[in-house]
Amino acid sequence: MSINSDALELHKKLKGKISTSLRGEVTPDTLKLFYSPGVAEASRYSANSKEKLSEVSWTNNLVAIISDGSAVLGLGDIGPKGAMPVMEGKAMLFKHFANIDAVPLVLNVHTPNEIVQTVKAIAPSFGGINLEDIAAPKCFEIEEKLKSELDIPIMHDDQHGTAIVVLAALINACKITGRELRYCHIVIIGAGSAGVAIAKLLREYVDRLAVDGKDTGPCMYAFDTKGIIHADRDNLNESKRRLLEFTNLSNSKDSLEEVTSNADVIIGVSGPGNITPEMIKSMAKDPIIFALANPDPEILPEDAKKAGAKIVATGRSDFPNQVNNALGFPGIFRGALDNKVTKITNDHKIAAAEALADLVSKPSADKIIPSPFDEGVVEAVANSIK
Amino acid sequence: MSINSDALELHKKLKGKISTSLRGEVTPDTLKLFYSPGVAEASRYSANSKEKLSEVSWTNNLVAIISDGSAVLGLGDIGPKGAMPVMEGKAMLFKHFANIDAVPLVLNVHTPNEIVQTVKAIAPSFGGINLEDIAAPKCFEIEEKLKSELDIPIMHDDQHGTAIVVLAALINACKITGRELRYCHIVIIGAGSAGVAIAKLLREYVDRLAVDGKDTGPCMYAFDTKGIIHADRDNLNESKRRLLEFTNLSNSKDSLEEVTSNADVIIGVSGPGNITPEMIKSMAKDPIIFALANPDPEILPEDAKKAGAKIVATGRSDFPNQVNNALGFPGIFRGALDNKVTKITNDHKIAAAEALADLVSKPSADKIIPSPFDEGVVEAVANSIK
Repeated sequence: MSINSDALELHKKLKGKISTSLRGEVTPDTLKLFYSPGVAEASRYSANSKEKLSEVSWTNNLVAIISDGSAVLGLGDIGPKGAMPVMEGKAMLFKHFANIDAVPLVLNVHTPNEIVQTVKAIAPSFGGINLEDIAAPKCFEIEEKLKSELDIPIMHDDQHGTAIVVLAALINACKITGRELRYCHIVIIGAGSAGVAIAKLLREYVDRLAVDGKDTGPCMYAFDTKGIIHADRDNLNESKRRLLEFTNLSNSKDSLEEVTSNADVIIGVSGPGNITPEMIKSMAKDPIIFALANPDPEILPEDAKKAGAKIVATGRSDFPNQVNNALGFPGIFRGALDNKVTKITNDHKIAAAEALADLVSKPSADKIIPSPFDEGVVEAVANSIK
Repeated sequence: MSINSDALELHKKLKGKISTSLRGEVTPDTLKLFYSPGVAEASRYSANSKEKLSEVSWTNNLVAIISDGSAVLGLGDIGPKGAMPVMEGKAMLFKHFANIDAVPLVLNVHTPNEIVQTVKAIAPSFGGINLEDIAAPKCFEIEEKLKSELDIPIMHDDQHGTAIVVLAALINACKITGRELRYCHIVIIGAGSAGVAIAKLLREYVDRLAVDGKDTGPCMYAFDTKGIIHADRDNLNESKRRLLEFTNLSNSKDSLEEVTSNADVIIGVSGPGNITPEMIKSMAKDPIIFALANPDPEILPEDAKKAGAKIVATGRSDFPNQVNNALGFPGIFRGALDNKVTKITNDHKIAAAEALADLVSKPSADKIIPSPFDEGVVEAVANSIK
């Protein structure tokens, strides 16, 4: 494919996508201030305080992008060397969209404990940690431990960045189709990091809408490669088991085809082919289809539309309605760094999703979310992280 | 002191000394090449090969500067947060002098094993590792293990960078005072990372001069805080014990004052006050004094000169003859990265020292080594690492 060969050629030509640059000129006069002996004073100043260090070093604007390469894009477990081009690309987006300095760190260790230990060891060097492309279910344990043990913002973007943008898109999709999210029948295909986080955040969002405390929330069902997640399965990891607290409350054992019948929304975070025209035809009026697998969506937009989908979103930039994490992480870390937020909470995520949804002044079937290149995206999201 | 307050003020004003920058413009058109979906092709290409990764990512020009903050400048064990401003300053020098992208990583772990594990874990992210300000003796073990277990260049700069520049300076100091280095009586004060590495490299250098294989090498003595290093001491760590293979072959137990009497060279890598005018007065004709403690040398140049020193070098830029590591590490890593050198050997170090010495076309008492700001320094050193 031409986009692939173009991409490889561009990578070879530039030999990398980021560099370091200097904030001041190095001369014999400045050298003694930037380095020995003058720098000793900055070291004395910062030695015992993360806050003081952030006054005199780049940590105030610095995020580490950490991956062990165990779940890279749609490529799977290709290891740290394969992950590096993606992480370097992400560093590029951090810089371009939010002026955040980001350093890609790909790890040659793979157990949750080793990854946690490594990140904790290097943590004083950074103002925030973006976990990326780490396979489920270990990603949940790693993020949880790091959040509880470190005092800087930690976010696994494949979970929360995706969930935030999906929620934003769904808020507007519901507006257009005249739905209330809390009464929707939603099917999530894929119960990895993104699927689990999407289900959790939708539940959190609806809970906040339930002013009388009586809502049961949307009727959600989650599927993994073995079928519907139900309570009697003996092959569920902890994160999938926790999904049962707010998905499949009726303990259905139906097939995907059966559960998508009459559904309002299908969210695919799985792989190509998992959403069929037949499913869409069987859905409720004005179906909402998020086919987010990358690079190949669960169904192509034209096929989904032909089958009756009212709104189609994908992860791709060459179709309308790109559910793009670049809408989230730059502003989220911009806000966390600037507002000295050390834990990114569900309230933050929901505020960010609402801010993103609000940026589209007149949502339409082909414009349910902004583009990351739109003015004001980073500011709006950053303002919600405080 | 004014230099200290100026330095702190400058650090606070700039809020850091380095940033990241982009090698290409991010637009909707380039985004699909730099990031998903196109980047997947670069990931497929690099997944199984360090060399291929270096063709498509910044690892080809990237060094990690690693410190646990256990021996920062003359400040001692001030930890990772105190170390960061120094490491960031070093990253600045890498960029300015050699156009190398360098990332400071300060570690919150301190045992040799933890440091080795952490560096190994992040190693696929980098093209080289500069260890810095890690206390002796653990620095020796850490460097040795990393060199044997990783396939990228590793250098503990406090050892080898210092030793290279000291050797270069000593080659020219001997020229000026009409000495042959292999017959010198040399006293090294300080048996930490720098002292041990200097003694080793001087020995290696002289061995290569001994064409007939009969030289015993220079007559070297090393001192730590407890006195002369001799074979009957029961408080020597492994690296100090190894020094006995080529220092103090007569197993002298004399005092520093006794051993510096008639010495040709004193090299201080310790702390202020350890070289006295009386010692210098008792030395051989045209004494050579390297008072390299930073920021406060073992003796001030004017006092050393007054006591009869012919040549005085310090670590400071405000005196002549600055023995400055910035003469070494930028060119060493430039050469290693460009010439794909994965182990920096003694031959490399000696070639680099000779290249540095040769850059001073007419050595004089006040100009035994180049300035890092002189033209051609990085190129000359880089050409010796191949």
